[in-house]
Amino acid sequence: MKTVTVELGEQRRYPIYIGENLLGDPQWLTPFIRGKQVCIVTNTTVAPLYLSQVEDALAGYQVDVVVLPDGEQYKTTATIEEIYNCLLEKRHNRTTTIIALGGGVVGDMAGFAAATYQRGVDFIQIPTTLLSQVDSSVGGKTGVNHRLGKNMIGAFHQPNCVVIDTSVLDSLPQRELSAGLAEVIKYGLISDREFYDWLNDNLAALMEREPRVLSEAIERSCQNKAKVVAADEREGGVRAILNLGHTFGHAIEAAKGYGNWLHGEAVAAGMVLAAELSHIMGWLSSRDVDHLCELLKQAHLPTSPPIDMSPEQFLDIMSLDKKVIDGGLRLVLLESIGQALVTDKATPEQIRQAILAEFQ
Amino acid sequence: MKTVTVELGEQRRYPIYIGENLLGDPQWLTPFIRGKQVCIVTNTTVAPLYLSQVEDALAGYQVDVVVLPDGEQYKTTATIEEIYNCLLEKRHNRTTTIIALGGGVVGDMAGFAAATYQRGVDFIQIPTTLLSQVDSSVGGKTGVNHRLGKNMIGAFHQPNCVVIDTSVLDSLPQRELSAGLAEVIKYGLISDREFYDWLNDNLAALMEREPRVLSEAIERSCQNKAKVVAADEREGGVRAILNLGHTFGHAIEAAKGYGNWLHGEAVAAGMVLAAELSHIMGWLSSRDVDHLCELLKQAHLPTSPPIDMSPEQFLDIMSLDKKVIDGGLRLVLLESIGQALVTDKATPEQIRQAILAEFQ
Repeated sequence: MKTVTVELGEQRRYPIYIGENLLGDPQWLTPFIRGKQVCIVTNTTVAPLYLSQVEDALAGYQVDVVVLPDGEQYKTTATIEEIYNCLLEKRHNRTTTIIALGGGVVGDMAGFAAATYQRGVDFIQIPTTLLSQVDSSVGGKTGVNHRLGKNMIGAFHQPNCVVIDTSVLDSLPQRELSAGLAEVIKYGLISDREFYDWLNDNLAALMEREPRVLSEAIERSCQNKAKVVAADEREGGVRAILNLGHTFGHAIEAAKGYGNWLHGEAVAAGMVLAAELSHIMGWLSSRDVDHLCELLKQAHLPTSPPIDMSPEQFLDIMSLDKKVIDGGLRLVLLESIGQALVTDKATPEQIRQAILAEFQ
Repeated sequence: MKTVTVELGEQRRYPIYIGENLLGDPQWLTPFIRGKQVCIVTNTTVAPLYLSQVEDALAGYQVDVVVLPDGEQYKTTATIEEIYNCLLEKRHNRTTTIIALGGGVVGDMAGFAAATYQRGVDFIQIPTTLLSQVDSSVGGKTGVNHRLGKNMIGAFHQPNCVVIDTSVLDSLPQRELSAGLAEVIKYGLISDREFYDWLNDNLAALMEREPRVLSEAIERSCQNKAKVVAADEREGGVRAILNLGHTFGHAIEAAKGYGNWLHGEAVAAGMVLAAELSHIMGWLSSRDVDHLCELLKQAHLPTSPPIDMSPEQFLDIMSLDKKVIDGGLRLVLLESIGQALVTDKATPEQIRQAILAEFQ
């Protein structure tokens, strides 16, 4: 068992536990529950697999469960109402703890409910997909989508702890494993060249789900994320680099309908666009871009945007992105492999060029 | 013009400006707007009276306006969606500022939208009722009602500044002036005996809306509230005393349907119940209780609960209150006039007794 700590000051630091068979063990949960009530939020896919283990670990508590439909298309304020209804009908009070058991969608919604129920209650993340283990369960971003944009409604609300049971990845569909690897590769690209090189050497083993290698990839990803979050909890500055590929990626998700492209797949294609644009800006070599594409292909991830999306469609959707400040489109690009920067220097023409380059 | 400061540490302290004819003057607003976009949230009653003045003060900004229906019954997540829709359709970004122009309902909803739009944007309060000027606009509580309880969904989100224009009280219906005085009297009861005595001497002048007296009452109320909020921003302890009469009051509002009893009216009756219970506990004299009833009557406020509400109905609704901790009903009571305490010592039988006493 390994522990990564997210350092948010004495009062608010929290641990990420990473190991095998943690789910059914009360010791990773009960020290972080201060009341007598718990509400587990999960979905129809995860509940049959892991819910009973978590319930068993919570003997002695009032445990209520909300089982949501599975899919990004349900990540809406309407679904949040279902969580509120359960909490109020079962009379959960201010000392209740909400536990997210599922992937990023479940975590984002359970977290938003925790941020807003009675002006904020305790929250624990048990992420069950690789993507949520290495990304969304850490750092306190919560929220839901709006028809006009992804994650437009939300709040910052840090969990009390994150429990990453690597055993659950055995049941993860291959496509979702790949989607998670997109975010893993991202950490190498933005801030950890050594990890990027390690990924090159170990990608085949990751695709084979070798436990030791998977566990190391998760730990190093969480360490990278925790470092950035500790430096800038509310994304006033450096935290924005975690969005490499995400502005392009969100545009793909919005255009194609949430849930058709997996988030990780859209981010993969988005990272290639960001890399291509970084090349146009004179920062990356074309060899760097080609090499990234190779790595993503090895992970069975897309390396170009949907064939039917025009550069204009990208620019239109991207202008709505949260990272737009007073009209200027701020993008995360790469100065070199392992070194990201946030810039508004790329012109619409250069962005167009980058998108067109990837259709060839 | 007077300024009361809410001290939340170097980075987050904010001013409350109190004075006549502040509404149309940019100097109280523009220093607190960091982007180029502003969204004013108001309602159908306030907009015809004061919206154009505020718009005039914001020349040079992109100003969008959401006009909500007027009334507590619209304080729902469905109404919040209208604010989100406007923000997204008009492409407001993360540096936008939301301005609440209206009473407590508008402030709570605009504040909740500000807390949750793009994970939190800037917020300014321009309260236009006495109740919101002395209470809800200060302290950062935001939220909406749920069919199972008042303010059950919400967040803490402090404004950048609060602009209290006392001139707007000229247009306030007498019933709403009275409702505001309930909260003013509350500050005397919970923490300021001297102010309570001052109110006894000046209540007639307040009912006559004498500007100098009204302004002093608002300033002293805001000072009292700011002191409590600075000591306990998120209601982990002492801040709970601000809820004197509110647990009983919320039960009245919930039972009678939000909006039929004004919030201040329900709080007035609730304060009498809390005072009666404090008498049963042996803390207040019956003379203290009678005296409070006299003062409230002078302010044209109710001093007993709705005739058709049973003690059981109170207890049932109150057990859902946010201030319930693991089953124990924590109430704000009075040790003496000017000295509140939070206690779970009152038994259901004593609570029943207090309610029945007020029906006589």
